Amino acid sequence: MGKNLLVAQSGGPSAAINATLAGVIAAAREEEGIGRIYGGIHGVEGIQAGRLADLTDFQELEKLKATPAMALGSCRCKLPPADQRDAAIYQNLRRVFREYDIGYFLYIGGNDSMDTVCKLAHHFAGEPNAPVFMGVPKTIDNDLPLTDHTPGYGSAAKYLAITMNEIIQDTAIYAVPAVTIVEIMGRNAGWLTLAAGLPRFTGGTKPDIIALPEVPFDEEDFLRQVRDTLRHSPNVVAAVSEGIRDRNGDYVGSSAKSGAVDTFGHAYLSGVGKYLEGLVKREIGCKVRSIELNLMQRCSAHLASLADIEEAFAIGRAGVAAAVRGETGRMVAVERLADSPYAVRLRTVAIEEVANLEQLVPEKWRNLENHKVHREICDYILPLIQGEVPQFRNEFGLNDYISFLN
Amino acid sequence: MGKNLLVAQSGGPSAAINATLAGVIAAAREEEGIGRIYGGIHGVEGIQAGRLADLTDFQELEKLKATPAMALGSCRCKLPPADQRDAAIYQNLRRVFREYDIGYFLYIGGNDSMDTVCKLAHHFAGEPNAPVFMGVPKTIDNDLPLTDHTPGYGSAAKYLAITMNEIIQDTAIYAVPAVTIVEIMGRNAGWLTLAAGLPRFTGGTKPDIIALPEVPFDEEDFLRQVRDTLRHSPNVVAAVSEGIRDRNGDYVGSSAKSGAVDTFGHAYLSGVGKYLEGLVKREIGCKVRSIELNLMQRCSAHLASLADIEEAFAIGRAGVAAAVRGETGRMVAVERLADSPYAVRLRTVAIEEVANLEQLVPEKWRNLENHKVHREICDYILPLIQGEVPQFRNEFGLNDYISFLN
Repeated sequence: MGKNLLVAQSGGPSAAINATLAGVIAAAREEEGIGRIYGGIHGVEGIQAGRLADLTDFQELEKLKATPAMALGSCRCKLPPADQRDAAIYQNLRRVFREYDIGYFLYIGGNDSMDTVCKLAHHFAGEPNAPVFMGVPKTIDNDLPLTDHTPGYGSAAKYLAITMNEIIQDTAIYAVPAVTIVEIMGRNAGWLTLAAGLPRFTGGTKPDIIALPEVPFDEEDFLRQVRDTLRHSPNVVAAVSEGIRDRNGDYVGSSAKSGAVDTFGHAYLSGVGKYLEGLVKREIGCKVRSIELNLMQRCSAHLASLADIEEAFAIGRAGVAAAVRGETGRMVAVERLADSPYAVRLRTVAIEEVANLEQLVPEKWRNLENHKVHREICDYILPLIQGEVPQFRNEFGLNDYISFLN
Repeated sequence: MGKNLLVAQSGGPSAAINATLAGVIAAAREEEGIGRIYGGIHGVEGIQAGRLADLTDFQELEKLKATPAMALGSCRCKLPPADQRDAAIYQNLRRVFREYDIGYFLYIGGNDSMDTVCKLAHHFAGEPNAPVFMGVPKTIDNDLPLTDHTPGYGSAAKYLAITMNEIIQDTAIYAVPAVTIVEIMGRNAGWLTLAAGLPRFTGGTKPDIIALPEVPFDEEDFLRQVRDTLRHSPNVVAAVSEGIRDRNGDYVGSSAKSGAVDTFGHAYLSGVGKYLEGLVKREIGCKVRSIELNLMQRCSAHLASLADIEEAFAIGRAGVAAAVRGETGRMVAVERLADSPYAVRLRTVAIEEVANLEQLVPEKWRNLENHKVHREICDYILPLIQGEVPQFRNEFGLNDYISFLN
């Protein structure tokens, strides 16, 4: 019997991260070189405290693939620098790795989680019997470098495109002038906001305004666009990233905010939609509403994309294959071969080239008045949002989910 | 050839109101006594200005059934008292009814729209060649009297139950104490908030707190419930109606609000979730987030209930049948015959007994700690949320909708 495999999840949830976990379990079970399969509860934080669940005999992989959020739980834990040999958390992890005879450690997460994989790989480098460390990507934000896109983005993009289409329909019914501001996740990268623009990019006229965090936001420009649109349409719909900043780099409306930061030092954002709602009410005076799509854009598994879920599963499998080959300190990445028919190849990249770095919307896709840009964005996003995921409805008509948390 | 039929939509949208329109068109087409079928654009407001679309040859009824919001547009227009013989809007409507030879006027809407039907029936009573006036119910709020429920409620309830289930899953992943407050539509009636409670009523433990507008809200009680829950669970989820009031009948957090009212004199509400978020942050100090489900709870046609859509269609048909029988000043209503297997009978009720009145959650269902109440609520709501509605996705994977607005 070979060494055992440990898999855990970290960072923010998505509709696809459990599909990646299912792929890891499926592949690990087929590998003769792997003994038992353990799931770490609440990421490295729970693992260092010895919280492991034995997943070796877990069978409900299809239901797990249709479960939103994270069946193993998550954490937001920033490890100390890799060269702090005496840090308690590294000592604790070393003890757990030994106790459970872990030969393979797969960590599913986004930018911050790849920082964890990077530090673990460096800290344990050269230690006899240390596991290999493999990063497996996920983030709805789609902001990891060196991968065409990230699992979870396709499902969030599908939720945003279809929900935006419904909101456009809902707000079109009255003849009185009204402005609707839809606030979308994405601290620095506008990938999700681009997805909310799909009803327009595919030939419609709305959303009228699309504001990416990559493009400096000017309040006067925004008000002018609203006024211009109101001249020919009673309803204005704006898709606005939560992370839009002014020319000085300050978050729009930040003067009205607390300045609180999360454990990674990121500014805690909320309410740019509410801020712009107030601005329009004050400066234009028409009916105005803001909508924050909030958690729904990352947890709406009922609207997940089959393409995303199946790819997330395949990425989990690829992570196991790379780990068994002995790769360490690397992350699985997606290389796109073609848009139509959509084809990709999975490979691995050095974790140092990913951790803590962000992939923004490229310069050439920021001019959203350009129809060629619309076509290119559609070519990029549309293959990722196709297909419906089978739902596991219980006797009441609600969804049954998998959870390994007690 | 008989007289012509005019149908219009009014008030707030839902995922089912276009299915009722489809039912009206389907039934009117089969009636030999009906000539052409006209759709009034933007309710009585557009009709009085002569904005009618000819729907006689419209064929895409199945796609119309899957379209959210209102394909004919809406208005929020309160008619003057019925005895104001010289009011311009009545004169204008009379002219349009004559010009288009309207024998049947069906108005699809909620409480306020039934006020319109009531006034029209009284105003035109006894006039030769005046149309019959038939109210056809819709409102996600489920607050019309004399009907077991209203079309649109089932789809909104399904959205709320499934989305709440996903939010519960999303918020369960971290081990750090956190409170999530979900704000749900319903000015005076708690029917939608009850639907958000279905994950608990069907055997789960969350949402931990369910606050109906029918039950006076006490901030100290709420904070105590949050603290109690945090003792055994790191995550608290609260489903809170936008319309909760304190013991004096004042909206919770209203002191922080503008006091603005809509055209019907209803207080304009927003932000009880944000208010409670601030309260928890200040008094308990843990991580707290509020989520406003906003328009999505009424326009999420992608998650519509087939039971609701088919019933809404049947109610449209029943409205035509009653109008052809010569009934006027009445509304189609649903009488429930059995929960399981679910069975209903459609009938009509006098519009005076419906207009401007509200059906609240009954007293006996307000004690949500009682498991017998959970069972009764499930028996009531669950039949209304079953089944999936076929989606009309275009070449891009987005939904194609019908609109008669140009």
